Order: sequence, then C-alpha cells, then structure tokens
Amino acid sequence: MANSKYEYVKSFEQPDVLLPNTWIVIRIDGRGFHKLSDRYGFVKPNDRRALDLMNAAAVEVMKELPDLCLAYGISDEYSFAFHPSCQLFERRSAKLVTTIVSTFTAYYIYLWATYFPDTPLQPGGLPSFDGRAVMYPNSRIFRDYMSWRQVDCHINNLYNTTFWTMVQQGGMSNTDAEQELKGTVSSDKNEILFQRFGINYNNEEEIYKKGSVLYRQYQLEDAKPRSEFSKAEDEEDVPGAPASRSQQDKIRKLRRKAQVVVDHVDIIKDEFWERRPWILSGKPGKLPAEAK
Amino acid sequence: MANSKYEYVKSFEQPDVLLPNTWIVIRIDGRGFHKLSDRYGFVKPNDRRALDLMNAAAVEVMKELPDLCLAYGISDEYSFAFHPSCQLFERRSAKLVTTIVSTFTAYYIYLWATYFPDTPLQPGGLPSFDGRAVMYPNSRIFRDYMSWRQVDCHINNLYNTTFWTMVQQGGMSNTDAEQELKGTVSSDKNEILFQRFGINYNNEEEIYKKGSVLYRQYQLEDAKPRSEFSKAEDEEDVPGAPASRSQQDKIRKLRRKAQVVVDHVDIIKDEFWERRPWILSGKPGKLPAEAK
Amino acid sequence: MANSKYEYVKSFEQPDVLLPNTWIVIRIDGRGFHKLSDRYGFVKPNDRRALDLMNAAAVEVMKELPDLCLAYGISDEYSFAFHPSCQLFERRSAKLVTTIVSTFTAYYIYLWATYFPDTPLQPGGLPSFDGRAVMYPNSRIFRDYMSWRQVDCHINNLYNTTFWTMVQQGGMSNTDAEQELKGTVSSDKNEILFQRFGINYNNEEEIYKKGSVLYRQYQLEDAKPRSEFSKAEDEEDVPGAPASRSQQDKIRKLRRKAQVVVDHVDIIKDEFWERRPWILSGKPGKLPAEAK
Amino acid sequence: MANSKYEYVKSFEQPDVLLPNTWIVIRIDGRGFHKLSDRYGFVKPNDRRALDLMNAAAVEVMKELPDLCLAYGISDEYSFAFHPSCQLFERRSAKLVTTIVSTFTAYYIYLWATYFPDTPLQPGGLPSFDGRAVMYPNSRIFRDYMSWRQVDCHINNLYNTTFWTMVQQGGMSNTDAEQELKGTVSSDKNEILFQRFGINYNNEEEIYKKGSVLYRQYQLEDAKPRSEFSKAEDEEDVPGAPASRSQQDKIRKLRRKAQVVVDHVDIIKDEFWERRPWILSGKPGKLPAEAK
Repeated sequence: MANSKYEYVKSFEQPDVLLPNTWIVIRIDGRGFHKLSDRYGFVKPNDRRALDLMNAAAVEVMKELPDLCLAYGISDEYSFAFHPSCQLFERRSAKLVTTIVSTFTAYYIYLWATYFPDTPLQPGGLPSFDGRAVMYPNSRIFRDYMSWRQVDCHINNLYNTTFWTMVQQGGMSNTDAEQELKGTVSSDKNEILFQRFGINYNNEEEIYKKGSVLYRQYQLEDAKPRSEFSKAEDEEDVPGAPASRSQQDKIRKLRRKAQVVVDHVDIIKDEFWERRPWILSGKPGKLPAEAK
Repeated sequence: MANSKYEYVKSFEQPDVLLPNTWIVIRIDGRGFHKLSDRYGFVKPNDRRALDLMNAAAVEVMKELPDLCLAYGISDEYSFAFHPSCQLFERRSAKLVTTIVSTFTAYYIYLWATYFPDTPLQPGGLPSFDGRAVMYPNSRIFRDYMSWRQVDCHINNLYNTTFWTMVQQGGMSNTDAEQELKGTVSSDKNEILFQRFGINYNNEEEIYKKGSVLYRQYQLEDAKPRSEFSKAEDEEDVPGAPASRSQQDKIRKLRRKAQVVVDHVDIIKDEFWERRPWILSGKPGKLPAEAK
Repeated sequence: MANSKYEYVKSFEQPDVLLPNTWIVIRIDGRGFHKLSDRYGFVKPNDRRALDLMNAAAVEVMKELPDLCLAYGISDEYSFAFHPSCQLFERRSAKLVTTIVSTFTAYYIYLWATYFPDTPLQPGGLPSFDGRAVMYPNSRIFRDYMSWRQVDCHINNLYNTTFWTMVQQGGMSNTDAEQELKGTVSSDKNEILFQRFGINYNNEEEIYKKGSVLYRQYQLEDAKPRSEFSKAEDEEDVPGAPASRSQQDKIRKLRRKAQVVVDHVDIIKDEFWERRPWILSGKPGKLPAEAK
Repeated sequence: MANSKYEYVKSFEQPDVLLPNTWIVIRIDGRGFHKLSDRYGFVKPNDRRALDLMNAAAVEVMKELPDLCLAYGISDEYSFAFHPSCQLFERRSAKLVTTIVSTFTAYYIYLWATYFPDTPLQPGGLPSFDGRAVMYPNSRIFRDYMSWRQVDCHINNLYNTTFWTMVQQGGMSNTDAEQELKGTVSSDKNEILFQRFGINYNNEEEIYKKGSVLYRQYQLEDAKPRSEFSKAEDEEDVPGAPASRSQQDKIRKLRRKAQVVVDHVDIIKDEFWERRPWILSGKPGKLPAEAK
C-alpha cells in the first residue's frame, strides 16, 4: 500500500484499556453551565425542564448502550456505570467515555426543543459536556461512590433551596444570604426554611432531594439479610475470567428487553441494591410480567 | 463537611496529563456511519451536504477552542491539533478529548437541519462520534500524521469514486465492481475512470480529493528555503518552559480575532506550512488587512 | 534559586500511582538465567543452592519491607504481594517495583558466596533481575494469580524432572527426550518416571513441586467454613478509606515482629488461606507464644 | 494446557510502552543514603571512593546496555539516557527501569570491596536504589534536563563544601554553619571559603564540581556553528519510523566497540555536544585510531 511511508505514526497511539474486573464509572459534567443556565433562563434553585432533559438524554444513552447497568444524575452531572464484567470496546477508556459523552450530547441537543419549546438554542452557546472514566475495584467502593454523589446532591440541594428561598421569598441580596449561610449545618438550614418561610424541606420533591437513578426494570426481589447479600455480590456473581463474546451478546439482548426507569430513591442504604440484585450481579433479572 | 465519609472515593480518579511539549491530535470518528449514511440517504461516493455539515461543526469547534491550531477532515472523521505549547485544561487527556467530541456533536446535531432540510433526524438513530488523543513529539512527526490522513483521503476517494462510477454509471453489481478493483493500483483506477467513463480524476472536486483543512487566517508569508524553515520550526519557536497564564490568555485573544478558513489543499508538501508559519510555531501571525 | 531556568523539566515526570484498594503483585524474573545457569554450572533440573539463594534474598526483601504480606518463588522468578490497603510510597508503581528489584538484587549478589562458595561471580556476567507491577482488584483474583504460578511450577517441574531424568539417567540426547515428551500429558510423564526409572514423582522434594511460599508467621487458626471465610475476607477486612499514617506505622511495627517463614505448601486450595487469615485481611495476627 | 483456568490473570498486566521518538531518561537514586553514608563512614562533603564506585557501576551498566548513549552521575544519583530511536525491550518502561536499577545494584554490591576494602558491607543495611523513567520530547529539552542536574551538582557541592569546611576546619557546630549559610548566594559562599579558609572553590576537583559524564568515545569533531548543529540534530538524525531489527543490532555492535569514558566536564554549554555529535544523533561516530 502506497500509504506505508506515513503509517508508522499509528505507533504513537497508546493503549488505554481499563483494568479488568473493576467497576467503570463515566461521569459527565455540563461545561460552563453556570453561565449557560443564565443565558437560557433556568429557574432557581432547580429547573424541572432542565432536569427532565438531562434524564431523557440519559435514558437514551442507557438504551443505546445495554452494557450500562446504572446511571445517576444531579444538576448538570451524570454518572454512568459499567459492571466489572463489562467487555464493551475491550474496555478502552477513551472509546467508552467519548461514546457516552457524544451520545448524551446528541440527545440533549436533539431533545432540547421538547423541554424548552419557548427557548431556542443559540449558536455560539450550545450546551456541551466533558467526562472522564474512573475505576472502582469492588461493589462496596462503587456503592460508596454512588453514596458520595447522593450525599452531594442532598447537601447542595438543601443549601440552594435555602439560599434561593431567602433571596426570592425573603428579599435578601445574594451576598447577604451567602453570608448568613456561611458555617451553618443542615439543621440550621432546615430551621431557616421552616421558621421563616414555613417550608418543610422533607416535603420538597424527591427528584430535587434524591437526584435521579436510572436502571433496567426487572421483578423486584425481597430484601435479603445482609450477610447473604454480601456473599452473593462479591463472591459468586463476578467471575474472574471474562464471558465469551456470544455470552456477552446474549446478555446484551436480554438487557435491551428491560425497560429503563427513572427513579428518585435512596441509593445509600442497602434496600435499593438488595431488591435489585441484577445491578451489582451484572446478570439480567426476570422481566416483570407485564413487560414479557 | 458531612460528606467526608464517602469522599475517599475521589482518590480513585487517576491523572491523565499528556506529556508536555508534544503535539496533541484529537481524532474523532462517526459511530456506525456506514449504517447511518444509508438511513439518511447519503449520496455515494461523497455527500456534499454531509461534508459541509462536518466542516461547519469543525469550524465551530475551532472557534470555541482558540487553542486549536489546525483541523483536518475526511469522510466522517476529523483530526484536531493542539500545539506543543498548549496548556488548555492542564493538558488532561479526557477533558480535551471529551470537550472536542461533545462540542462537535452538539453543532453537528444543531446544524443538521441546515444541511439536510428535507431529512429530519430520527430518534433512536442520532449521529454520534467517538474520539481519542494521540501525542506526537515533534513537528515532523506531526506533519507525517497529517500526511498519513491526506494520503488515506486520496486512496479512499479514488477507490470510492471508481467503485461507485462502475456501479452507478456502469451498471455493475457491487460485488462485480469490488472484484474487479481487487489488486488494482492508482493508475489502473484512473484508467478505468477515463477509458470507460470519460472521467478525468484530476478534475474531481478538491474537497473530495484533498479533504478539508481548517486553520486561522493570517497574512500568508513567502515560502522560505527549507533549511531556514526547519530551524525556525524546531528550535526557536517552541520554548521548553510553558507560557504564563497571562501570556496564554493574550495569545487566545489574538487567535479569536483571526478567521477560521476551510481549505482543500495539499498539506503533504512544505509549501502549505511555510506560507502559514503560525501553525507550526504556535504564534499568531499578522491579521490580513481587511480583517483588522 | 539559580536553578529555576531548567527546573521546568520536572514537569515531564508523569504520575504512576496504582489504583487504590487493589492487590499489587511485583513479579521479578532473572535476566538471561538460561545462559547464566550454564555459566555458573547450575545443577539440572533443580539447583538447590540457587533456589535457597533466591529464597534467602526474598526473605531479606520481606524483612526490609514489612508492607509485603506474601511472596512466592519458583525457578528464577519471585512474586511479591502488597495488600490492597498498602500505602507504601503512595503506591507509586516505579518506586515499588524498583525498590524490590534493587533490594532483591543486592542480597542475591551479597549472599552468592554463601550459597556458591566454590563458584565466584564473574564480572561481565553478574546476575540481575527485571520486574513489573500488576494490580488485581480482589482477593479471589489475587489467589487465582498465585494458583497460576503454582500450577506453572508443577507443570514445569514435572516436565523438567522427566526430561533431565531421560537425559541424565536414560542417556538420551536432549533432542530425543524433547521429541518424546512432545504432546504428553502429566500422567504420561509420571508413567515414564515410574516405569523406566522407578521414580515416584510424588516423592520428589516439596520445594521443587510446590515452589516457595514466604509469609509472616502468626498463630495458625482453625480452618473456617467457606462461607464465613469469604465474608470476612471481602467485606469486613478491607476498608475503602485508607488507614492513617500512624495506623500504618503501627501495623508495620507489628509486622516486623513476626518471623518470615519459607514454606513449600499448596496455596491453591482454601486451607492455606483460611489458617493464615492475616494474609488476605492485611491485619497482623497473634504472635506465636515462643516468639513473643 | 491444564493451566488455562487461571491463565486469565495475565489479562491484568497493563502495557507501559513509552511514547516513540522521545528521549528516555532513567534516573536512579540511592535509598536512604544519608543514613547509609553514616553507617559506612563516608567522608564529607565528598567521598571519592563512593563516587568512584558509583561511576564504576555505571560504566558496567553502559557496557551491558549498548543502547544507552549517555549517563550522568552526582552524589548517590545517576541518570541514564536512551536516544529517541531506541527500541530496546519495545520501550517498555518497567523493563527498562528495572533492568538498569538491577544491573547497577549488582555491580555496586559486587564492586564494593574494591572501593571500600576496609569497610565490609553489613547484612541488614545493604545499599539499594530506586528509579523511574521520564520522557523528553526533543534534544533541547533533554539537554535542559542534563543542565538541570549539573546546575544542581554545582549548587549542592558549593553549599556542602562551604558547610563542611566551616565545620571541619572552622570548628563550627552544624547548626551554626547551617544558620550562617541560610540565605547566602554563590558569591557569599565563595567569599567565606576564600576569606576564612584560603580556599579557591575553582580549584576544587572537577569530579565534585561537575559530576561525572559517561559516554562512548569516538573521534571528537570540530565545534560547528550553532545553526548547522541544530539542524543536524533535530531534523536529519532522528528519523520518524523506527529502524529495523537488523539495523538496531548492527548499531548495537558498533557501540560495543567504543570505549566508555568517565569525564568531568561542562555539559550545559554547546561545545560538549557539538564535539560529540554521536550522542544527540544516536549514530555511532568514528572509532579513535588507537581503538580500532
């Protein structure tokens, strides 16, 4: 081939395969969304349209990539998780992260008009996202990652809800509200909301307090006693050697059949994981009767 | 902060800073564009609308990221180049590659209707792109990379032009055309085009034969003798120590002022680079009189 | 500091921190030991002096680096294992692997004369070792690694024992022996040894059949039922968040007190690990009464 | 093969190939040499026996690895440089760095008795070294690295010479000497040495002031004007595509013929490099008449 003189440049491409048998989380973040939320008039502290658009885009990513077993979104950020047994794209980091970032962006732009019918996108200021891949060596640490994001959601949302209530309903300046909130703990903020504005934070919408959890829906299982659960999770369900290509294809096919649901629930406690063992096991569950 | 119990998971994020003082090329590729070009009825062998859309999206990427000094596109692939002196995002690989992939995707989807007014996008089949970052240690190897892509453009386009002419004008089946072209060299294909179909390949459009080169437009310089050029390129223009943040900002500002042009020219020979020394030097040139 | 003009070159040093909470195995191999064993007249198939020297050097490595929790040696190769909780040298890969390779080499050369009193080292042909670090995400895969090495030991030793018996006692040429062994399975080799030479392979020395296992000696525990064992291993004993520096120092001190023993036992079955739970847990056990 | 059940663990070994066409520097450092120099009674500020031993070990490393084109040593540290065209061990980082660290350590221990005939090594306190590999994308930056080390040598040696003279000849306590030197610049230290002790720092031995430079000796060339030199260095002598295996072997053979010399000269200015163009070009020069 006449091309050979220059083809040596391919040797500069370095491998970026992620360690086998680890959880892979791809977290994407909106680029410059602070400025962007002003430009497009996002409602404070939470713009329901913007969150629904994030979730809709994430659902499409889950549908296009059946290897994904969980996604969790808050604000302008989304975490997508691949099971340790995942072999997609031979676990090449850049391939995994760019595929998710690009697919998410495509749907976000495409679906924008559905969620913001009166606010057209402006060239020169299109939304975009960056992302990265991180490995977690076992289910417990993976769950700690997810807990970290949900705790962050809670902390940020309580702060933002209090801050914007003080500004919007209390007529305070941004600076004064910020000043007063400095150093406060959760109970202080709950108190401000309740005493001054009659707001019970517990009654706020779950999507704001808990974020959005996406997963494939199978028949829920009864919660199991902890010890049994741990054993199943760590020992039996994650074989060391990778599945064959045909096994992988079969599992992908089964996953495509399951519906992707958007939930706003606690993912810190065990119950969520115990009732949906297919997430940590990586093995598809039983389809609900109605979906068969 | 109440968050601390889970925050240790941040320690699993591994650094991915690219080696300083190397050229960074981000190459993105359309995902499944073979199938996608069927779905949306792309014209064979080259769909001008699709190429113009690729170029339009790439121009926007160049505008949003003034650190980019060159881009080169063929078919459903685009290479974006950062100069060795680039410090953008502290040269973090995932950040660079996802920002480009996402921005490109956003504009590709957003501008689709402009270039395909009669062919709306279909949910479930949105275009998306993957990408990767590669380092090249010096200008010569970087130019060899660019030459590699342009030679590839030539080889593919000559093949595709001949193949589709045999099918579309010659009434051959795909299999027969493929069979006849097996083992042929360039001159054979030129001959087939000329003898059977009266087509002089040299008269084909430059955008198909050369691909698309994007760069910032400054006043062209006279071509310099080779030895002088090399010295300037390798020795003086790429200082080892990084520029200060304020210098970087100043250079970015100057780059934003220059127009991004789309060209279809030879980038294998020296002339292109000698007349546009700002590309390899990383230093903005003089703005053309009319653009000031 | 006058040095600053050149100090920017430090920015080219790239981080190489290994993923937290994974097992780290440093495997070192003799460089050109085939040739070297000829030069120094190693006995075939196994030179006890050479193996004892390897083990003596490995014991010193274990003593100098209390963070090591296990080592396994066969032939001219040694695997050293750090527990997932290990924070030594901030888990920098090059630092860990070079420290072990250098310390091992130093003792190998220093102790040579003890084990080869009549065979002085020759300048221009000194023994040396290369090495690499590999991560294993959980205890099961780590044990599979160890099993892999011990199975390799068995396969190689059975082959070598049969081959050299055929040559040394059977008077066959190397080529003929190699030819006859091609395609044989274990039982064939056992048969050759027993039928032709009256050798029962099971009676060969354990150090040749099993390799050498090094670990710190604490009071052995009773073998536990499997389910309990797994739970302890995977769930409770490996906290996600790293230990504090003072905790690490305390553990190191306790480890230094334990004796490093050289054993030749099965490490594939559960029993070895169940009776020595401190290896997989990373927590020092109880010192034997006599050692207190 | 019966081994297959566990062999999957090999998939956890991750590639670590260094970027092609970059300079590779392996820098090794003595581990805990501050304490070690006390234990073995090293003379302050410079122990000539210890430096000669370092150099002797480094010469053996250069001899065993003909791919090395330069080494530079100061105190208990040594930098070994591979040319960008080097293909040794397919440029695998761990293999390169451990081979050098292990070979160096082996000779250091082996040759110890030659340089310290009256100070035997003590088990439990053997010298060892760690190391790391760093890439430098071009000759200018590689030279800046070398300059950095030599400037460091000068700064440290001037400080140490002054400090130990104040202590040993001036009878000051360590603390007092340290206190007085705090904040002083080079001229201050020169002044102290000259005024108080009649020592002209310029007359100190070159090995202490300049460190030790190791390279293969060919016929020196006349110093060339700078512009010509740069061109040769950066453009012609480092082809992008790698040399064939037989070319590499041929070059290695030629290199083995050249003598490795230990020099104590300035490597910051151009002259050293211009007169020994084979170092930056990677091409063996002409052997000196007497060595043929």
